Amino acid sequence: MKQLIEELRRFRDERDWGQFHTPKDLAISVSVEAAELLELFQWQKEADQLDPKVRDKASGEAADVLMYLLLLCDRLEIDLVTAARDKLDRNRRRFPVAGSRGVAKPVDQEAD
Amino acid sequence: MKQLIEELRRFRDERDWGQFHTPKDLAISVSVEAAELLELFQWQKEADQLDPKVRDKASGEAADVLMYLLLLCDRLEIDLVTAARDKLDRNRRRFPVAGSRGVAKPVDQEAD
Amino acid sequence: MKQLIEELRRFRDERDWGQFHTPKDLAISVSVEAAELLELFQWQKEADQLDPKVRDKASGEAADVLMYLLLLCDRLEIDLVTAARDKLDRNRRRFPVAGSRGVAKPVDQEAD
Amino acid sequence: MKQLIEELRRFRDERDWGQFHTPKDLAISVSVEAAELLELFQWQKEADQLDPKVRDKASGEAADVLMYLLLLCDRLEIDLVTAARDKLDRNRRRFPVAGSRGVAKPVDQEAD
Repeated sequence: MKQLIEELRRFRDERDWGQFHTPKDLAISVSVEAAELLELFQWQKEADQLDPKVRDKASGEAADVLMYLLLLCDRLEIDLVTAARDKLDRNRRRFPVAGSRGVAKPVDQEAD
Repeated sequence: MKQLIEELRRFRDERDWGQFHTPKDLAISVSVEAAELLELFQWQKEADQLDPKVRDKASGEAADVLMYLLLLCDRLEIDLVTAARDKLDRNRRRFPVAGSRGVAKPVDQEAD
Repeated sequence: MKQLIEELRRFRDERDWGQFHTPKDLAISVSVEAAELLELFQWQKEADQLDPKVRDKASGEAADVLMYLLLLCDRLEIDLVTAARDKLDRNRRRFPVAGSRGVAKPVDQEAD
Repeated sequence: MKQLIEELRRFRDERDWGQFHTPKDLAISVSVEAAELLELFQWQKEADQLDPKVRDKASGEAADVLMYLLLLCDRLEIDLVTAARDKLDRNRRRFPVAGSRGVAKPVDQEAD
């Protein structure tokens, strides 16, 4: 992961693209890529087997989401993995195993 | 990162939430969280200083995006970091430094 | 519809909010509202009956999407209903009834 | 508008596509199309003049958003224009002209 972040920085800086990377524009990119990822599953029925071609495309789109997310976090000086572990800690307290088992709840349904 | 994935799996399995995690529903979650992240920057002007409160909230929303993205990749048996490094390799070939320097281009603007 | 557009303009201008309504910011708002609409259906299973409360909330979120879409079109001097009828015409040619009947295809899957 | 809705229904029913149009799938489509609309403005700077080609493409993408939104509302038996006028009424009360003038606020920032 650290190596990926280093490579992304080098990729950006060699091309002098940091000037385009405002937090707002990077957040737009994360959202646009997430929609391209979603589009792959758009007409998927629950009973359908997943097409291996969809899986391969999902790999590329998920990669795009992660790359823009890391570029955004780099700009905001956020350590993404630490942020995720902190959030997961909060989710553990918010959704204790007893009371949550088998009940549909998004992992982010927090007050904040 | 590997540890985070392990913790996410345990969080999901202790609550028996894997049954809700179809690829389609997880892709919806990635997209919904990405929009919540974007919302933070919605009325941000280019000249504005970023509010530290926005940065803190962005940290939590970016964490949500990553967590759902990892849960999706886990379901699809995709190694997200490897996928990102592969994509970055393709982007390096697609956008050679000469010819890309200082020209606005999203890092994912590939034919495929 | 014409009356709604007139009312939206008056709402915006009385509050002097036109200054915030760049096409880019309005497009962000359309996207953020669309995600809030989607969020309502996030964990909906195919076999589930729709909760009437979800329907009511969907009405408010769909309204938000339409309002921002109309404000964007107003800014770009696009007549949205005419644009939709033009697009539908193109879709009719692209998806002739023979050959499309009962085959899943998004109405927008056009080359352009 | 009423005529457009009628035409959309005919378009859908002639192709027997109503079977694919669950509320959830239509909400996904609204969101995916909204992201395609947003993508057009992705790297737009505040000082930039809007490219006429972007405007033309925006017209087609805005049309897609509206069409899926209308198909969703048709499925949920929501009158979209009435819903928007109701929401605008609520927004008028929530954002009185005195106190809102020139202050950036999204039109939907309501408690509910």
